[in-house]
Amino acid sequence: MEGRFLNPVGYSYAGIHAGLKKRKKDMALIVSDRMATSAAAFTTNVVKAAPVIYDMGILKGGKAQAILVNSGNANACTGTRGLEDAGHSAALIAHELDIPEDAVFVSSTGVIGVPLDMERIEGGIKELATSLGDDPIPAAEAILTTDTKTKLASVEVEIDGKSVTISGMAKGSGMIHPNMATMLCFIITDATIGHEALQKLLGKGICDSFNMISVDGDTSTNDSVIVLANGASGCGEIEEGSTAYAAFAAAFDQVLGELARQIVKDGEGASRFIEMRVTGASSKADARTLARAVISSSLVKAAFFGADANWGRILCAMGYSGASFNPDLVDLDFISAKGKIRVLEGGVPLPFDEDEAKAILLEKEVAVLADCHQGDGEAVAWGCDLTYDYVKINGDYRS
Amino acid sequence: MEGRFLNPVGYSYAGIHAGLKKRKKDMALIVSDRMATSAAAFTTNVVKAAPVIYDMGILKGGKAQAILVNSGNANACTGTRGLEDAGHSAALIAHELDIPEDAVFVSSTGVIGVPLDMERIEGGIKELATSLGDDPIPAAEAILTTDTKTKLASVEVEIDGKSVTISGMAKGSGMIHPNMATMLCFIITDATIGHEALQKLLGKGICDSFNMISVDGDTSTNDSVIVLANGASGCGEIEEGSTAYAAFAAAFDQVLGELARQIVKDGEGASRFIEMRVTGASSKADARTLARAVISSSLVKAAFFGADANWGRILCAMGYSGASFNPDLVDLDFISAKGKIRVLEGGVPLPFDEDEAKAILLEKEVAVLADCHQGDGEAVAWGCDLTYDYVKINGDYRS
Repeated sequence: MEGRFLNPVGYSYAGIHAGLKKRKKDMALIVSDRMATSAAAFTTNVVKAAPVIYDMGILKGGKAQAILVNSGNANACTGTRGLEDAGHSAALIAHELDIPEDAVFVSSTGVIGVPLDMERIEGGIKELATSLGDDPIPAAEAILTTDTKTKLASVEVEIDGKSVTISGMAKGSGMIHPNMATMLCFIITDATIGHEALQKLLGKGICDSFNMISVDGDTSTNDSVIVLANGASGCGEIEEGSTAYAAFAAAFDQVLGELARQIVKDGEGASRFIEMRVTGASSKADARTLARAVISSSLVKAAFFGADANWGRILCAMGYSGASFNPDLVDLDFISAKGKIRVLEGGVPLPFDEDEAKAILLEKEVAVLADCHQGDGEAVAWGCDLTYDYVKINGDYRS
Repeated sequence: MEGRFLNPVGYSYAGIHAGLKKRKKDMALIVSDRMATSAAAFTTNVVKAAPVIYDMGILKGGKAQAILVNSGNANACTGTRGLEDAGHSAALIAHELDIPEDAVFVSSTGVIGVPLDMERIEGGIKELATSLGDDPIPAAEAILTTDTKTKLASVEVEIDGKSVTISGMAKGSGMIHPNMATMLCFIITDATIGHEALQKLLGKGICDSFNMISVDGDTSTNDSVIVLANGASGCGEIEEGSTAYAAFAAAFDQVLGELARQIVKDGEGASRFIEMRVTGASSKADARTLARAVISSSLVKAAFFGADANWGRILCAMGYSGASFNPDLVDLDFISAKGKIRVLEGGVPLPFDEDEAKAILLEKEVAVLADCHQGDGEAVAWGCDLTYDYVKINGDYRS
């Protein structure tokens, strides 16, 4: 269910304004009423923010009960002090909630290189602990930066006759080109599942979701996906290879995919959502590489901004992607709610009606289908156009 | 000598309007009065334009006498017909000039996927052949697309007591992210040198020049650097390992570097030239990777457009580059004609005067120096900022 957040059993939420940002909410808390299994994936950037380094330690325990988030400051490139601040924040909220210190994940997003204002963080932590309730929206709002809307997704699935809910919230906008992880994303569920099974599920899931989106080609220092599964639905433990596992995995992947697509739809300055679908590639890996190269190309993105059926740039981006394919076999179609138009068949350009193409490309959501006719490798990537507003937003983000 | 083109002995030039573009010159010809040694480097894109495929065959001969160029149409993604058109053009000009057919390189740049208008090409070829003269400027103008100025460079060097001239012209603007080759670039010299030595020199030379620039991260289907050396200076053959070779190589590299920098300075929509200098990296390869990642980052480029001292994005781009380095050791400086400011030392952010930083960054040419303090790997990459005009130019290039 895109854009909706159903509350899994046993969680509470808070989102407040602690003063890290001028006016908007800037601190969030998600708490499970009992110890939960954890899983997480983090940025592959060599420059990892302090909360990411801290969380990599917490993840080793395989269990957690709370996620503390701040926006407005990434606590990245802040050295030893940044790590101390992350640990101190976790300890403070653990004390307020009376849970173990090592049961808290911390996440930060915002400007790089400025130490956290710990006075405001401490005040925020106290306020969060006393504001916990059933409404996830204030938390979903508090994790945003230049996002224009909250990103929410929920799926319900029946396991052992019990209704299990998987829900997630995310923030995206800029510096979005995940590699093994993504922007901040928090998934909670009342399913019962072990740490290893959950971690494996997440690792597979992000390959087809968060690793297949790009806003600007920049992999952030803070990308994190954190998952809690508290078992409060009362379902039996979901074991790998079981029918329950397959059902849970499908629902889990759906939540990841919906959040990933919401992130690019709300990409910085984006006016158009682009789906790049590659079929017939020699392998799944090649299909992924081809699809990612197209949605990452500045020239392709600028062409979509202009609703220009510039398929040459698409083929060119596939060409430099590093994947092997034969350009002389490729079919290319543009598809939207206004119809479908084929512009290239077997590598040969087809004459097409420019007005018809324009009408298709002027839609808010446009898909490109590239059939390589070489094998059965398939992948889908999602991106957005490159607009004046992207340049405007990022030309002076700090001020 | 940047921006100047000294005529090596034995070459003539022509540049005319054949009607491929509306008003501007669109066909160029460079001819040597005797057979010359050739060398060339081409795009690594899997999707190679017809003239690139044709020229790869011509290069095998190691000799050539003419370079025929058209702008306005890339002759890319044009299938069998495109290859025939390339060969037919070469045959026609060879006939007009009374030189062997396999002594002609052909180059094209412009829109992708539209067959060449051979009627206009044929007319243009006849006109070119009768327009040859001493002035290289019409040819340098005719190879441009969205470039706003010609790119020229010349260096003179004494070999065996003879004055040898190396001169080059290039076109760039968009789709600039070369990999083993670049946009169109033609280098001519009156030096005497064998094919293998010249080819090796070119292969090395582009690593530190055309492979270290980026305008938009897109590697074109048509990138070509073609070199002719006709021996007309009367110098003895330049053998690898000799003092003469070292002198020639230094001059040759200077021409390549100057043309590469002129290309990014005139990058599509660029308002600012960025030099990224990495020192102290573990290896030369790491230094290259780090420098290229920074000048390729959309976020870094947008920050430079806003003259924003956003060093966090620079460190972030280094972090996801794939090169190994320790962020906790890095020093970062911004440098321009207005001064130098250190913003990061040993991975720790330094407080700095925002007004002073702004003054430095508002200059047209800005350098960033990153010292990794890990080894002696060094590299320099050149790029430009990401501006509204880039989006405007590329949002509707075809029309």
